[in-house]
Amino acid sequence: METPRFLSREQAIAIREEFGSPVFVYDETSLRANASEVLRFPNAFGLTARYAMKASSNAAILSIFREVGLKIDASSGHEVERAIRAGIPAEDISLSTQELPENFAEIAKQGTTINACSIDQLKRIGEALPGSSIGLRFNPGMGSGGTAKTNVGGPSSSFGIWHGKLDEAREIAEQHNLNVFRIHTHIGSGSDPAVWQKTAAMSIDIVREFPTVTNLNLGGGYKVGRVAGEQTTDLQVVGAPVKEAFQKLAEETGRELHLEIEPGTWLLANACALVTSVQDMTDTGSDGYQFLKLDAGMTELLRPSLYAAQHPYTIIPVEPTEETGDYVIVGHCCESGDLLTPAPDDAEALAPRKLAKTAIGDVCVIDGVGAYCSSMTAKNYNSFPEAPEVMLRESGKTQLIRRRQTLDQILENEIPL
Amino acid sequence: METPRFLSREQAIAIREEFGSPVFVYDETSLRANASEVLRFPNAFGLTARYAMKASSNAAILSIFREVGLKIDASSGHEVERAIRAGIPAEDISLSTQELPENFAEIAKQGTTINACSIDQLKRIGEALPGSSIGLRFNPGMGSGGTAKTNVGGPSSSFGIWHGKLDEAREIAEQHNLNVFRIHTHIGSGSDPAVWQKTAAMSIDIVREFPTVTNLNLGGGYKVGRVAGEQTTDLQVVGAPVKEAFQKLAEETGRELHLEIEPGTWLLANACALVTSVQDMTDTGSDGYQFLKLDAGMTELLRPSLYAAQHPYTIIPVEPTEETGDYVIVGHCCESGDLLTPAPDDAEALAPRKLAKTAIGDVCVIDGVGAYCSSMTAKNYNSFPEAPEVMLRESGKTQLIRRRQTLDQILENEIPL
Repeated sequence: METPRFLSREQAIAIREEFGSPVFVYDETSLRANASEVLRFPNAFGLTARYAMKASSNAAILSIFREVGLKIDASSGHEVERAIRAGIPAEDISLSTQELPENFAEIAKQGTTINACSIDQLKRIGEALPGSSIGLRFNPGMGSGGTAKTNVGGPSSSFGIWHGKLDEAREIAEQHNLNVFRIHTHIGSGSDPAVWQKTAAMSIDIVREFPTVTNLNLGGGYKVGRVAGEQTTDLQVVGAPVKEAFQKLAEETGRELHLEIEPGTWLLANACALVTSVQDMTDTGSDGYQFLKLDAGMTELLRPSLYAAQHPYTIIPVEPTEETGDYVIVGHCCESGDLLTPAPDDAEALAPRKLAKTAIGDVCVIDGVGAYCSSMTAKNYNSFPEAPEVMLRESGKTQLIRRRQTLDQILENEIPL
Repeated sequence: METPRFLSREQAIAIREEFGSPVFVYDETSLRANASEVLRFPNAFGLTARYAMKASSNAAILSIFREVGLKIDASSGHEVERAIRAGIPAEDISLSTQELPENFAEIAKQGTTINACSIDQLKRIGEALPGSSIGLRFNPGMGSGGTAKTNVGGPSSSFGIWHGKLDEAREIAEQHNLNVFRIHTHIGSGSDPAVWQKTAAMSIDIVREFPTVTNLNLGGGYKVGRVAGEQTTDLQVVGAPVKEAFQKLAEETGRELHLEIEPGTWLLANACALVTSVQDMTDTGSDGYQFLKLDAGMTELLRPSLYAAQHPYTIIPVEPTEETGDYVIVGHCCESGDLLTPAPDDAEALAPRKLAKTAIGDVCVIDGVGAYCSSMTAKNYNSFPEAPEVMLRESGKTQLIRRRQTLDQILENEIPL
């Protein structure tokens, strides 16, 4: 019999009983273990590991990571404020954003460092904060994906300053007397050490053009396997060539670069489960499909619909059984795209899963939902309220860290005609 | 020079000035005109047109539609409550849901009619409300899409009772003495009258099996063109064969069926614009792309990322110009999938648009965002607050119908560890 990744069958049932369904459950033990691994990332002259908080932004998660020594990568001005409210010191936050907030100068004065992610951001920062210290995010011209598709690096990516504009960026920085102390080159490097070697070399080539740079930030994008057949990045393996490249630069130039990394998925993905219920079953005849309908869907878990993401599903039958069934799992929205078990390469193609034989009322645990799930959902679609979040403490006790939303809250900003 | 669909350039600029950016703007005139067209849908023996409120659920929209005579199609128990709070009489609401709410008996007793959408829903309703009136939603075995893909009808659809289970459904209804007064067969019929003819015939064949049925509900799914080359369903054209089929049944059997339809997109799609701002521009060199970054994205408009949906974008340059540029438009999230101008068949392929030459600070109006936009977004991702909604009254005045969300509201359910 399959079991969920970190929840026991009894825990899953007890959590549903206490907090209702659906509910996100984060595992403090996994969060701390993953953070420890990240903090052991190979480095030559020091490491700062930042949690990419957009992956899941609950203050409880931020505070656990703060305790163990992670800093914060914020992707918007709102996230900076949210992190500060959660008790993160401003100087422990780095902001890399597609939309520079209007109050960026205030944010910088509080101590948060900013990476200019475009030529215009650089100009605005230079004009408002001449003489200040700044990071520069570059697009080095290569990403881990294809070329005509969305990507975090390469010609199809809108992220960062295009490497061909390096001279222009340097001139603007000089013009405003900016101290460029950090280069940032998040390109989504995956799990292949050869790609990391190339990434590090390209990034160091950019660093060579800026003698004031002391920190190199390689961003995030470290893939994690959620289901069988998907690979998890071994940080020790991919980090080794990076460390070597830093050492080589030091031997050659005397410059000892501080390494920064910004994982989100790697820290969170498998440290959270969504406890749901099978609330209906239908089928479309002997040549069709057998469908499980959960009391959750794209309102809690958008990645399958958006990216054909694969998650493990574990049925917890009321009566343990050796029997199985082939089920297509769908969400509770009146939306044909609310499909939780798509084919790996096609979000609209139905891919049945072999699961324990189930019945209406059974718990269904969805694993691998820590990153870009609770924080990136089609919430309130069909007017379903946002699901609560629970922390499974190291002690084994559970603690509510976000209450279930109410319909009153969904409506509170409406103004009648 | 291009212009937005219903906003003048001056209105768009004034609305941004008054309500901030981004902001949804609904056009009361279009809403009323579309409702009038829907209420003229060809019918032989009476028509009830229901607004599929999941398309956009603001009370202001519901109340305008109520005024002109539309009823409501709700897709969850939460939507029923929301509609009632907006002043819709319970008996004007019909519930067809993938997740029967626990309080369904109470909902039915208030006057809302329920369509059983699965065998189990039918059993639960029969047990709780023996002798009551009920609708049955069937999956007639055909939809307007392919067969191995998500669909609202056919073997790949989880919606409704499979037509092969018709006898079973009838037996359950008889067993609980249920009065089956309505058959529902939403299969997403598109704009082809031949498909409508077939749909109507299949649905009427189901009606023949239930002598107590007085109403046939054909659901929604009436496609609307948002950009050039996309077709808008002509209701008079697709409705004609439906009317004929109803007349034929009456001649043959004496049964005069009342027609129900449930449009969402058709009523809303082109009656709303999203007023946004160009907040940054980047490019990836002469062989790459020129990117416009808006202060909105998948947090307001998820359809491009989810379904490669095409929307019209109009730049309103501060200085009117005849010059154009080829731009890829991206959203403000740190997410490579936050792409607003995908290729029509691939949400991850970049498709530049020829637009008026633009500069940072220009207004960008996104049209065609009335349906499944404000109600179905990745809101709060990157901690961006939910955008406000405004109604452009027939008088030309604008009225705020939903305030912009605050960070306090995003965080209000969090509980520190």
